[in-house]
Amino acid sequence: MTKILVTGGLGTIGAKLVANLREKNDDVWFSDRSHNPDPKSVRCDVGEFRQLENTLHLAKPDVVYHAAAEFGRWNGEAYYESLWRSNVVGTKHVLTLQKELGFKLIHFSSSEVYGDYPGVMTEDVMDKHEIKQLNDYAMTKWVNEQQIQNAEQMFGSQTVRIRIFNTYGPGEYYNIWRSVLCRFVYSALHGMRYRVNLGHVRTHTYVDDAVEWISRIHTNFKPGEVYNIAGTHSSDMKQLSDTILKVLERKDDIVDYAELEPMTTKDKIVDNTKLIRDMGTLKEVTLEEGVRRTINWQRQTYNV
Amino acid sequence: MTKILVTGGLGTIGAKLVANLREKNDDVWFSDRSHNPDPKSVRCDVGEFRQLENTLHLAKPDVVYHAAAEFGRWNGEAYYESLWRSNVVGTKHVLTLQKELGFKLIHFSSSEVYGDYPGVMTEDVMDKHEIKQLNDYAMTKWVNEQQIQNAEQMFGSQTVRIRIFNTYGPGEYYNIWRSVLCRFVYSALHGMRYRVNLGHVRTHTYVDDAVEWISRIHTNFKPGEVYNIAGTHSSDMKQLSDTILKVLERKDDIVDYAELEPMTTKDKIVDNTKLIRDMGTLKEVTLEEGVRRTINWQRQTYNV
Repeated sequence: MTKILVTGGLGTIGAKLVANLREKNDDVWFSDRSHNPDPKSVRCDVGEFRQLENTLHLAKPDVVYHAAAEFGRWNGEAYYESLWRSNVVGTKHVLTLQKELGFKLIHFSSSEVYGDYPGVMTEDVMDKHEIKQLNDYAMTKWVNEQQIQNAEQMFGSQTVRIRIFNTYGPGEYYNIWRSVLCRFVYSALHGMRYRVNLGHVRTHTYVDDAVEWISRIHTNFKPGEVYNIAGTHSSDMKQLSDTILKVLERKDDIVDYAELEPMTTKDKIVDNTKLIRDMGTLKEVTLEEGVRRTINWQRQTYNV
Repeated sequence: MTKILVTGGLGTIGAKLVANLREKNDDVWFSDRSHNPDPKSVRCDVGEFRQLENTLHLAKPDVVYHAAAEFGRWNGEAYYESLWRSNVVGTKHVLTLQKELGFKLIHFSSSEVYGDYPGVMTEDVMDKHEIKQLNDYAMTKWVNEQQIQNAEQMFGSQTVRIRIFNTYGPGEYYNIWRSVLCRFVYSALHGMRYRVNLGHVRTHTYVDDAVEWISRIHTNFKPGEVYNIAGTHSSDMKQLSDTILKVLERKDDIVDYAELEPMTTKDKIVDNTKLIRDMGTLKEVTLEEGVRRTINWQRQTYNV
């Protein structure tokens, strides 16, 4: 049985990944920054070397899914000290311990690494084009990928990088820094005004679909490989907002429409061919169905 | 009179820059991590926001020369926690306070940002080519440059970036992480064996020359500009070692010759046209004369 550690195991994706892997009978530990009653959980701030070292010595994983990170572009600007410590020093700690302990690593990167690239986002774009990183969050994620590539070359470390595109669904707790879909749903449910930046096409992948793809990676592990994690549904911000309002049977009088957001990638057009090739297809949850489930979950969670 | 703050003012370059600027009657403050008797010095770790904020409120500079940083490729790998905190969080603190206080910034970057680029290093290489950063130190310096460019675009901050190439001379105290020339001289003076990696052409700029160029930047300040700081002398590691041994009248029996160092740029061929155009020419100190002065300074400093 494969022993697995998921860092950031209480996060939106991490928690669902732990559940998914456990259903398949893997021996799954997880870590996160708070205590948890689960007997295979460890409190661990990945920015603190000693805590991470203890966690790895306890869990003795064959595979580490490294999902722990400060998340998001604006959160990263507001909390940049934590961003750099958790994401970059934290991942360097992981790589330092990987060199000693030899586990396989699946590293959670982000679509943000494609920066201002305007074309179709295939995984090899960065080998061919100079990318401008538009914010510190994006920089941490691209730095991580370079740290990993250098470790592969220097120490023969075995790592797969995954670049996660917009993912949404139940389990994402609302705050102002979360995904657009989470914020739109929360606002619409509470009758709060919200701003929709016109333009900005994004894929929107239902969390269970993203997690299912991710959960397959360690059983088909190709060191050095990179995968875009994204489904096939894409829409701009207004279509997204309209879908939410349609499900809620609400008018758009609470919506403020605005122009393109500065320092933010205009469109993200993703190529997920390699993911499908290596991890197989899924019957994806449609945007409308996913929105419906997210609304129901938020209704229950926030009693609205 | 221009009020200037030099961060890292006790460093090899910083200390000489403070002295140079003071000779020209500028009102010069400096900060560094230790206490100092100088009445215009402030103890300040730039990775700590409050300390930097206090320093800036005290010195009220029109111009900040931001030289404070963890230095060097291998030092950066060994002390990566300090590297990321001082260089990246520290510079983000500087940019955050620049937005509030509006000083002009001269940021000390490094030739390391040219990464694995094999051609002539003109300042616009990164706009045209995808560069692989070969180590964390290089990454911090390139991240800084992107943070600065984003701040220029978002807030109209006024910054000049300087990329410092190998600089050597009196005032560089020996430790194993210092410049090759410093280490070669120290080893040769002490009869310690040292390793010379064959190949690896570098420019070697005498510290007083580099500092003189740098000191002129604030009086001819062009926001958004980038300068390579490098003289015209270049040599490979063996020529450098041979020059030292020649001055010392010593044979090379203490030298171990080795092949190219991994994860290190092979050659750095620099274009300093723009520096000369905007900051003027200098009568540069020759390598042999610079080596002689460095040897004399180390002899005095270390009593050998």
